[in-house]
Amino acid sequence: MCQLFALNSNTPSAVTFSFTGFSARGGGTAEHADGWGMAFHDPSGCRVFLDDAPASRSPLAEFLRRHPIRATSVLAHIRKATRGAVQLSNCHPFQRVWAGRHWSFCHNGTLENFAPRLDSAHQPVGSTDSEAAFCCLMQSLARRFAGQGPAPDWALLAPVLAELAAELQTFGSFNFVLSDGEAVYTHCSTRLHWLPRSHPFSHARLIDAELSLDLSRANGPNDRMVLVATEPLTHEEPWQAMQPGEFLVFVQGQPVWHRLPEAMRAAA
Amino acid sequence: MCQLFALNSNTPSAVTFSFTGFSARGGGTAEHADGWGMAFHDPSGCRVFLDDAPASRSPLAEFLRRHPIRATSVLAHIRKATRGAVQLSNCHPFQRVWAGRHWSFCHNGTLENFAPRLDSAHQPVGSTDSEAAFCCLMQSLARRFAGQGPAPDWALLAPVLAELAAELQTFGSFNFVLSDGEAVYTHCSTRLHWLPRSHPFSHARLIDAELSLDLSRANGPNDRMVLVATEPLTHEEPWQAMQPGEFLVFVQGQPVWHRLPEAMRAAA
Repeated sequence: MCQLFALNSNTPSAVTFSFTGFSARGGGTAEHADGWGMAFHDPSGCRVFLDDAPASRSPLAEFLRRHPIRATSVLAHIRKATRGAVQLSNCHPFQRVWAGRHWSFCHNGTLENFAPRLDSAHQPVGSTDSEAAFCCLMQSLARRFAGQGPAPDWALLAPVLAELAAELQTFGSFNFVLSDGEAVYTHCSTRLHWLPRSHPFSHARLIDAELSLDLSRANGPNDRMVLVATEPLTHEEPWQAMQPGEFLVFVQGQPVWHRLPEAMRAAA
Repeated sequence: MCQLFALNSNTPSAVTFSFTGFSARGGGTAEHADGWGMAFHDPSGCRVFLDDAPASRSPLAEFLRRHPIRATSVLAHIRKATRGAVQLSNCHPFQRVWAGRHWSFCHNGTLENFAPRLDSAHQPVGSTDSEAAFCCLMQSLARRFAGQGPAPDWALLAPVLAELAAELQTFGSFNFVLSDGEAVYTHCSTRLHWLPRSHPFSHARLIDAELSLDLSRANGPNDRMVLVATEPLTHEEPWQAMQPGEFLVFVQGQPVWHRLPEAMRAAA
């Protein structure tokens, strides 16, 4: 299994502190040593960094811990290979361009007997179930919104993605984070947590490294952000566990849309 | 105007020496200070590094000069903005995925009144004529080879790309390097050079930096590669100028296909 991380913020923010804790799990405090990757989205563009070396020992990961890249949406992934060899083309985040936006995607879980029919515009490069699932999502969006020019906004995309996530979840476990730079879409199949941060900011203390940060010095009074991670990254802060089947969308550093699975809605 | 660089090799090779000379032109020995980028293709995958800072002063460029990444095809670009703001989404190489392969593209030149009709699968993210041209190439390939599954090989792609390059060249100057990891496709509209290197390897001495390299120590007797650059990067080596309108394809470190403008005219 792998671990997921995401940030969505109303102002470009650095994730060096969080990534220090998260990347320690890539072969340091945990066994996810089969590669890692990060995608940084900001209004000026998108950059993806990938490595098939363990995040805890990768020179490129060390570079990113030392050189903060500020971004409004960030995805990160550390890999414990379950399907597909340890190689670059199997490292998350996967990236595609559709409707004038960069889309990046990280998955945690395993899909069984999952062999979607994908056209040549949506063929995976590597050999993971995760990239096939991402290609399937993008192909479904492209068909649903065909010929509509620029990408639809999150309010139109969210219900379509939630429905697709529920369909793909029937093949196994399908925790994911997805971003087009505007929103971060998250789906919890088995395990995913999120944490809001805003003024007044407190101290944060990493679980995976001896490191604390005074968030009130790192952020301004109007900054607002949400962190998402498979397992909480810090002590004491109010990380919230998503429910299995829950779909949550974050824009401008706060939750804007969510859907619980059918059974839960009925029970509620 | 910008500057282009490419490598195609029969074995994964490092380009730190060439990139040291090339990146000096990004705000050091030349004025191309509006961003830079590199794409590394090897059989295990593809990685793109982009920065909107000048290559001669970018910490990420310094990281790549110090940490060799071995690859069989490499593209690099340093930008002097003529169209589109200085921002990440306007930095080359641009990347797309089609037919199960990563495609990367760098352009030097300017296309005038170029406004291709692009469907939503091929919308540019940024605002350059270069990315629009790349989107146009990819859309044309997708239509020409629709429904044929995995990507066709270079022998099928070369004549189609040569024809498309000749068409796009009618809009202005269109020097480019393009790779899908298998081949490096190059088109000279105004200025582009290439250099074969193989056993017996000699010494190379950079034009843009006080640096020499004993190529016989850096390469084995069976290594074979081709370098491509807007302007020659080294003294004394036999760089060959491509002719305006010439289209050249490199695979496994050697030229495998070319077309001269006379042939294009005759074909027309």
